[in-house]
Amino acid sequence: MIIGKVVGSLFSTRKSEKLIGNKFMIVEPVKGMKTDQEKLVAIDIIGAGIGEYVLIAEGSAARIGCDMPDAPVDAAIVGIIDEGQDGIG
Amino acid sequence: MIIGKVVGSLFSTRKSEKLIGNKFMIVEPVKGMKTDQEKLVAIDIIGAGIGEYVLIAEGSAARIGCDMPDAPVDAAIVGIIDEGQDGIG
Amino acid sequence: MIIGKVVGSLFSTRKSEKLIGNKFMIVEPVKGMKTDQEKLVAIDIIGAGIGEYVLIAEGSAARIGCDMPDAPVDAAIVGIIDEGQDGIG
Amino acid sequence: MIIGKVVGSLFSTRKSEKLIGNKFMIVEPVKGMKTDQEKLVAIDIIGAGIGEYVLIAEGSAARIGCDMPDAPVDAAIVGIIDEGQDGIG
Amino acid sequence: MIIGKVVGSLFSTRKSEKLIGNKFMIVEPVKGMKTDQEKLVAIDIIGAGIGEYVLIAEGSAARIGCDMPDAPVDAAIVGIIDEGQDGIG
Repeated sequence: MIIGKVVGSLFSTRKSEKLIGNKFMIVEPVKGMKTDQEKLVAIDIIGAGIGEYVLIAEGSAARIGCDMPDAPVDAAIVGIIDEGQDGIG
Repeated sequence: MIIGKVVGSLFSTRKSEKLIGNKFMIVEPVKGMKTDQEKLVAIDIIGAGIGEYVLIAEGSAARIGCDMPDAPVDAAIVGIIDEGQDGIG
Repeated sequence: MIIGKVVGSLFSTRKSEKLIGNKFMIVEPVKGMKTDQEKLVAIDIIGAGIGEYVLIAEGSAARIGCDMPDAPVDAAIVGIIDEGQDGIG
Repeated sequence: MIIGKVVGSLFSTRKSEKLIGNKFMIVEPVKGMKTDQEKLVAIDIIGAGIGEYVLIAEGSAARIGCDMPDAPVDAAIVGIIDEGQDGIG
Repeated sequence: MIIGKVVGSLFSTRKSEKLIGNKFMIVEPVKGMKTDQEKLVAIDIIGAGIGEYVLIAEGSAARIGCDMPDAPVDAAIVGIIDEGQDGIG
């Protein structure tokens, strides 16, 4: 998993039926983290707000781990990082 | 997922039988997005046009999420990004 | 998927039994494509020749999409790109 | 797999129910290893301590290989590297 | 798949039970190959020696293709490259 900061959200009206009802957030991995400086789009099953630091799972873990085994989803916010931890954010 | 711009399409006459009937689009991730400046080929289940900004799912999510679990497909356009959103395109 | 050029083939006498009978081609993604300048080895289910431009599927799509679900294969040539298309090759 | 050094741990109170009870460690691949200089977050099924060198499995191997097939986990510490080996650490 | 050179082996006494009995080799992709200059750790089902050039499968292909579907393994040596081929090694 990687730690990222939620920097925006995304709207898509015309999309796969299997994606209906999901929130798409734009996340940016924190500095020093894998693929930092490279934003990605993740669904959010936790309810993260913009500016929060989150834990992101990628690949089949996002799809299967979020109970959407048949959806075209390859990244998901699966936790919110507790505040006040060193080296994060 | 990543956000990309559709920059072209692709024709392949000699191909896996499982790919027959699919449209192959060349997409370029937008600046600042994961793997930007690196184009990829995605099937299109939405009907995106050249110049449109799209949501792309990669890996097994493309194959399974687009109801092609047995096809050699590792990237798919699964949504069209609504116009007028900040920081996209 | 990515577009690559077939630049060579590869022989391996001592290999997994599940790979016997497969042709291994060395492919180079075209300039501007994801992972360009980084060659990879793909099995060939289409019959591509050296110098041809091909469509490559990676990950579980290669294995499952080429009817080799139990083989240690993570990349496959799944189509030959038609000649005369802009921006390819 | 890759070899990394455990450099920290991570707390997340609000997270996927399927992640409850797991320890999240921040690991940094060693120099010269794939994705070095890019930290990642891995669950720990071995009991590694900060400063130890560990073996990390990524992708579906982490989820399935650690008996958490339904959890949103894409990286796991699956071994501790024995001390005194050349070129590690 | 990628071509790599076996540059070392690795010992891990405390590890996942599912990894017991496996040999871990450190491999370095050859120059010009995907992820070159980035070593990785692969299990060896062929019996490769240090200095040999090998074919490496990554991702679920390693786990499933090597008959270890439940093990935390994401890379495997699945063939030894025949000597005397151009552009390898």
